[in-house]
Amino acid sequence: MAATSQEQPKDKAQQRPKARLARGFVDRGPAELAASGRMLEKIRETYEFYGFDAVETPFIEYTDALGKFLPDQDRPNEGVFSFQDDDEQWLSLRYDLTAPLARFVAENFDSLPKPYKSYRAGWVFRNEKPGPGRFRQFMQFDADIVGAASVAADAEVCMMAADTLDALGLAGKYVIKINNRKVLDGVMEAIGIGGEDNAGRRLTVLRAMDKLDKVGVDGVRDLLGKGRMDPSGDFTKGAELTPDAADQVLAILGAREGSNAATVANMARAFAGTATGREGCAELAEISGLLSAAGYDDGRVIIDPSVVRGLEYYTGPVFEAELTFEVKDEKGRPVRFGSVGGGGRYDGLVGRFRGEDVPATGFSIGVSRLMAALLAVKSPVVAVEPPMGPVVVLVLDRDRLGDYQAMVGQLRAAGVRAELYMGQAGMQAQVKYADKRGSVCVVIQGSNEKEKGEVTIKDLRLGASIRQIKDRETYLAKQAEAQFVAPEADLVAAVKRVLDRYR
Amino acid sequence: MAATSQEQPKDKAQQRPKARLARGFVDRGPAELAASGRMLEKIRETYEFYGFDAVETPFIEYTDALGKFLPDQDRPNEGVFSFQDDDEQWLSLRYDLTAPLARFVAENFDSLPKPYKSYRAGWVFRNEKPGPGRFRQFMQFDADIVGAASVAADAEVCMMAADTLDALGLAGKYVIKINNRKVLDGVMEAIGIGGEDNAGRRLTVLRAMDKLDKVGVDGVRDLLGKGRMDPSGDFTKGAELTPDAADQVLAILGAREGSNAATVANMARAFAGTATGREGCAELAEISGLLSAAGYDDGRVIIDPSVVRGLEYYTGPVFEAELTFEVKDEKGRPVRFGSVGGGGRYDGLVGRFRGEDVPATGFSIGVSRLMAALLAVKSPVVAVEPPMGPVVVLVLDRDRLGDYQAMVGQLRAAGVRAELYMGQAGMQAQVKYADKRGSVCVVIQGSNEKEKGEVTIKDLRLGASIRQIKDRETYLAKQAEAQFVAPEADLVAAVKRVLDRYR
Repeated sequence: MAATSQEQPKDKAQQRPKARLARGFVDRGPAELAASGRMLEKIRETYEFYGFDAVETPFIEYTDALGKFLPDQDRPNEGVFSFQDDDEQWLSLRYDLTAPLARFVAENFDSLPKPYKSYRAGWVFRNEKPGPGRFRQFMQFDADIVGAASVAADAEVCMMAADTLDALGLAGKYVIKINNRKVLDGVMEAIGIGGEDNAGRRLTVLRAMDKLDKVGVDGVRDLLGKGRMDPSGDFTKGAELTPDAADQVLAILGAREGSNAATVANMARAFAGTATGREGCAELAEISGLLSAAGYDDGRVIIDPSVVRGLEYYTGPVFEAELTFEVKDEKGRPVRFGSVGGGGRYDGLVGRFRGEDVPATGFSIGVSRLMAALLAVKSPVVAVEPPMGPVVVLVLDRDRLGDYQAMVGQLRAAGVRAELYMGQAGMQAQVKYADKRGSVCVVIQGSNEKEKGEVTIKDLRLGASIRQIKDRETYLAKQAEAQFVAPEADLVAAVKRVLDRYR
Repeated sequence: MAATSQEQPKDKAQQRPKARLARGFVDRGPAELAASGRMLEKIRETYEFYGFDAVETPFIEYTDALGKFLPDQDRPNEGVFSFQDDDEQWLSLRYDLTAPLARFVAENFDSLPKPYKSYRAGWVFRNEKPGPGRFRQFMQFDADIVGAASVAADAEVCMMAADTLDALGLAGKYVIKINNRKVLDGVMEAIGIGGEDNAGRRLTVLRAMDKLDKVGVDGVRDLLGKGRMDPSGDFTKGAELTPDAADQVLAILGAREGSNAATVANMARAFAGTATGREGCAELAEISGLLSAAGYDDGRVIIDPSVVRGLEYYTGPVFEAELTFEVKDEKGRPVRFGSVGGGGRYDGLVGRFRGEDVPATGFSIGVSRLMAALLAVKSPVVAVEPPMGPVVVLVLDRDRLGDYQAMVGQLRAAGVRAELYMGQAGMQAQVKYADKRGSVCVVIQGSNEKEKGEVTIKDLRLGASIRQIKDRETYLAKQAEAQFVAPEADLVAAVKRVLDRYR
């Protein structure tokens, strides 16, 4: 908060607020914004090509409309920024893009085409402790199909995710994994933890399975049983399954085979014990067929029974987009880059407004994670030369601002990105300013030049590059190129000649 | 809030939340998003051409960092959405883009080029009663120059505003007006309401002047004196100036002449009574010279002493971008479209963090107002044909989803925007769906066609247009074009033939 303090109320300097970003938030500069803009545009193009329409909801919703669909179901509404308006109605900042979409679809149900295919990029907010790479404002890019019970819709969003990653320069560096929550639910029923009353325990099981990458099979086995002590000594209570029940759950994690067809066949054998399990396997088989028909079964999209996704609200197929290349973790050890997005079927989310389930499925990209990935692989989508800075017309004689402004006007009229220097500094500092802006050249007209009707053009890039030259004659020749005089009437042509050196 | 109520806790239907937008917020569909995207892109291009760099701050700031710079200075922090985080620090949603920029510049002062020229488009939030055209979330597009005391910076943002409106298709339909707060301040000093103690009274005077368009000269005179009763009977208390003091204020409103040079000369005569007033007039004269040097004195940018701008924090030149064409008001009477943006110099805003003034000037566009203007004049920037909907491959035989998916795959591979129908409806409803999506054609393959290795292509646009044809032979010929059979192997070529009819 402010540096104001009860003890020193008279001290003016102490009463000044401190200029600081709120914790867990970031500012973004031109390079990041440009790269992010190009990435979002590529995603947008792909989604529109697939026939998805843009739609955007506001940042704020009535708290009750957002519901309690946070990952932390057990702490409802914690983690959400909420406040009251002038009418004392409770409002919340959206914490994801799915809950507002559910509200939008329910509110406009009759006028929307069905199935309704839509996409949106948007900032979401979490009132949580920030940490490294964990922000309180971050962007998601979602695509959803509402009103399609067919698993063709699930297959579609997964194929689109693959095409998107291809378009972003990640071809061969990712895999889209598909599982079905019904297979897990079938096993849960079989081991006696089905039904409303066991929802909490099922969530504990899902979270245990979700930790496979981090704690290995034995760690998951502990978390499914009595619990697990991590190396730091913290104990996580387990799901208290019997060893036999835990084995049945662990069987899911190991059910993948070399091809989608073989995986699906294996699962159909292993999880045929319940109607729910059989339904889940049949859906995966249909998805597998569609992937094959469209040519995505070449390793881009795979059926993988180990995918869990923590969210309670998924009711069918679930997806995960994983990047397979390695980066270094904070301790310098190579690790897989990991997930950049995921999703699944959530038939109950629109339904909670309407009293009947509405089939829906969607895919959400974590935009910052994906941007980090594109930078890591130097994707051409984001690895772009920074644009040239503006040509700066220096101000040597403050009484002739109008003349300098007229030069800027001529350059701009000719399509040259140019500006008048607007500070109070002397010539050297003005050149430094232009350097900092990434300008290729500056235009100089002191009183001498003015008298002769000339301007001096200084090529900053060339000027910088010739400083190392030892040979005097070479240096002088280059120097004559780096800084030269032109008739005032040829200003535009002279500047363009310099700019052309770097195009 | 939710339909839950204490009286009926058992009634499930009553416990369903209502799906409704929060009051004062809107959802935005594809046409609006596309038009808005094109408009923002044009503004961005112009700003970058002028050498401004993009920068974005987060939506949330520490409340004390935002300060009390709302238009309603007398009700500090009212109108702002504020809340506490998990550490009980007070946070606020930004209510404009200027206060966060001031925080950003103060926090990064040493590393930024100076002058620092930046731009940003962003949503801002107001916790106020919404009304017609008055939302609680709206977008501003700001450009600012920090660290430039020279009025060349003020002239620059005004010329850029003019170029922006030209680029948006509003050439000849706007005027950028410039005044100087110092001229007003000089008159205030002269009539004895200078100094800290009279800040509230000066604000009342500024607001009275700002109402010239609405209440006319006599109305302003009342508001400067005892007060004014509006037609509805509401009484607004006045600034309690003497008639002579009020006349001096009113003289400002009438000081404009036919050209910038004449206006500036007139003002220099009329407001020479105080040092502040002379300084203000000298600055306007310098701005006028720069406008003339760059060719913007052709009526695009004018010196107009009647411009006030309500914000207390302006310290020098102030600007207003006004659209001059007429639209109908809510009662059908023709009125000028009015302001779509404005700004001015605010030397104290960064300084409040640093303890010394930092010169700064900026211009802010009201994005929704501007969009309404572009739609009103049918600007080519926003008046664009909606894109064709996707080609829809219908699903007639649910067992052959894979075949249909393969057709979609072929079309997409050929660059055709296409999708598989994913709902459960029959053929007629599927065609209706395609119609609603704006699709040009659908692809149909029932069991008959499958046996013969054929597909049917149905041109929905042509089909709709020939319904009126009376002559049977003409109709049949056209009908053969609107729906035809092609070999399955020619699917892509046949679809492209139809699409080409509408390019």
